[in-house]
Order: sequence, then structure tokens, then C-alpha cells
Amino acid sequence: MPKTKAQVAVSLDGYMVGPNQSEENPLGEGAGGLHEWIFKLASFRSEHGMGDDGETGVSDDVLRAAQENIGAVVMGRNMFGPVRGAWPDEDWKGWWGDDPPFHCPVYVLTNHPRDPFELENGNSFHFVTEGIEKAMAEAREAADDQDVSVGGGASTLQQAIAAGFLDEVIVHQVPILLGGGERLFDHLAGGAAKFELTDVIEGADVLHITYRLG
Amino acid sequence: MPKTKAQVAVSLDGYMVGPNQSEENPLGEGAGGLHEWIFKLASFRSEHGMGDDGETGVSDDVLRAAQENIGAVVMGRNMFGPVRGAWPDEDWKGWWGDDPPFHCPVYVLTNHPRDPFELENGNSFHFVTEGIEKAMAEAREAADDQDVSVGGGASTLQQAIAAGFLDEVIVHQVPILLGGGERLFDHLAGGAAKFELTDVIEGADVLHITYRLG
Repeated sequence: MPKTKAQVAVSLDGYMVGPNQSEENPLGEGAGGLHEWIFKLASFRSEHGMGDDGETGVSDDVLRAAQENIGAVVMGRNMFGPVRGAWPDEDWKGWWGDDPPFHCPVYVLTNHPRDPFELENGNSFHFVTEGIEKAMAEAREAADDQDVSVGGGASTLQQAIAAGFLDEVIVHQVPILLGGGERLFDHLAGGAAKFELTDVIEGADVLHITYRLG
Repeated sequence: MPKTKAQVAVSLDGYMVGPNQSEENPLGEGAGGLHEWIFKLASFRSEHGMGDDGETGVSDDVLRAAQENIGAVVMGRNMFGPVRGAWPDEDWKGWWGDDPPFHCPVYVLTNHPRDPFELENGNSFHFVTEGIEKAMAEAREAADDQDVSVGGGASTLQQAIAAGFLDEVIVHQVPILLGGGERLFDHLAGGAAKFELTDVIEGADVLHITYRLG
């Protein structure tokens, strides 16, 4: 059965982005350390056209499996770009250039309407102004018998958890302190969702923990 | 070589105590769920005179090992009791009755002087008004060739981490959301300490993660 899933790198103090996010530093200060392990991996490097010299091993296997079978993506507007408020024009096409790594329809949550557009290799972007329930429904339909991936940021993931949309989350726990930013598990009431620990895999400098939500 | 160590149960959202702590509910609302796994264990039940019917297994082994070889304990005043401000008298002897589970000297951080006292089975309590550095030094001397345990609460642990006193922390990560309270890893600057993941053990409904600090 298709599921709705997410994977997020978080620091020991729970942050998925660091403090002081900006266009130059979209993941915040110090957050490079959260993703160092990903940048080394074979699956990431080949996916992003960075060469075929990446590392294989348990972390690469985890990332590869998490990225399999995704038929649609839901993300918040800040994940899509730094533009705020009404769209001044349609120039901004996302952080990823002409060939984003999704290869499927992406549903972007925003308060400001914009026409959908398509890029290469199956990437299309759709703007949803009616909230996460509507975005999830459209993504679910587009994904058909494949999974829906919730890409972030923190607020979108928290909305998905609180509303019971998320079936599985893989937390890539990295043993660094960021000291500020946005936490994955925040703004959620006690007992807001039930988590079951289903898998733990130890990589080099990262722990991959899978939870099933119920 | 003796080390300074701590072990803490934390929720998925990082809290080691829940919201709204009180004398009736010293660990805050919902925090019972953080410790359910401990209350079942053989080592905990025998230590606390709750019978010899506890569970053995990996979590019991982890707890037993963490509690071995402790020669002194440092804790904050709230871990010792609910009394605030100057000590009205010397009636309050801690949460644990006549025979606390420490069996060694305990150093309590407080702003208010009080004479030390002794209870059964090697338990003694000493009140340190000169800050964590002094408390750690006294505990280190008392522990001799054994380990010093930092018992909590959150503020004491954070001070110990920031000042570089802690060599090892075992995080017992429990997959529940508390939604508020005090987080273990909070009020710490980015990069305030370096952590190395040294061990991961999967218990039933709890993940035991050991970090070495450097």
C-alpha cells in the first residue's frame, strides 16, 4: 500500500535548519554539518550530477530506499525558494535548476496563487493555496500507487504530523549542536501523534531512525 | 580512567521533563511515559525495593552498566526537592526516603547554604553554593577512582556540557511527544560541545544512544 513518508536530517538538539536562514544560506548557519554525510553518498552524487565517485554503504542504502517509489512531493514555500509574499513574476523555478531531482509532480504550499509549470524529466510544480489537506489530496491522486514524500520545511512536516497524514518518518540524527533554528519536533502537543520505532541503522556520524506513525 | 557521565530519558521532541512540573508531578505532565520502560526493569525494581520480578534484557543491561562504578553524584536543587529559596528548616531530605539509591556522596547545587547530612547505606548530601565547577571538583575528589554521575536536571546537565565536564551521556530516546517542558539539549550554542556517537542499542520502545563528548 502506498504511504506518505518523510526523511529529515536533524541535529542532536533537534534542529533541521540552523539559525539565521537567508537566500545565501537557506539551511541556516552551521547546518552544512547536518548534510555532510549526504553529500558524500553515491546515490546523492549521481542524482545531482556530482559524479559517480560517491560512498556506498548503509547510509547510501538508507537514502536510496527512502527515495524509491515516490510519485509526488509536498513541500512548503520556503523549501521551494526564498521569494516571499505575492509572486512578482514567474522567474523563480525552485532551487534546483532545469532538472530537479524529484522527477514527479511537486505540490508547493503557498498563500499566493501561481500557475503550475513543468521542467525536464517529469518535474512539475503546482501551487496549492487551500492548505495541507488539499495539497496532500492532490499529491495522493498524482502519486497513484506510489508514495507521497513530504519534503519540509519544519512547519509543513509539523502540520502533516498533527493532521495524521504522515505514515513514516526517517530521522537522520547527526551528533552536532546547532544551537538555534527550526526544530522538526516542535509546536506539537503532547501525544499529538503516536510513533513506533521500527528501524535503527548506524551510519558513520549519523544514525538513521525510522518511525511509523499511527 | 574514571569519567563523568550522565544518562537521561528524553522524548522524541527532546524533553527530559514534561510541562507544568509541580511537587505532585515533579517530572511534569506526560513524563510518566518517558520512564515506563525503566519501571519495568529488574535492576530498577530491585534497587528501589519494588520486588525481584523485573524484566531483564538489553535495556536492563544498559541501565545496570550505566549505574555501575559511580562514586559521587552532582545534581541541581530541583532534582533534590521542591523546596525553593532559603531552606526553611532541614526537614526535607530528598525525594527518596531513608535509603536513597545512590549509596555515595551527592552534591546538590543551590544558592542557599545548608549543612550536609547523612542517610543510610553510604548516602550523604552536600550543598554547594559556589557553582558547578566547585561541585564537580568536590564530587571528583569524593569519587576517587570511580565515576561521577551528573543526575540532572536540564540546567545542570547543560552547564556540565557547556563547561566541558561531561565525558559521556547515554540518551534513552523514547518515541513519544511531550509537547513542552525542559529539553536536554537546549540553551547550548552551536558547536558548544563535540559529540561522538559510540553505541546504539535498541530496547523495547526505547533507543539507548551513547555519545562521548570531547
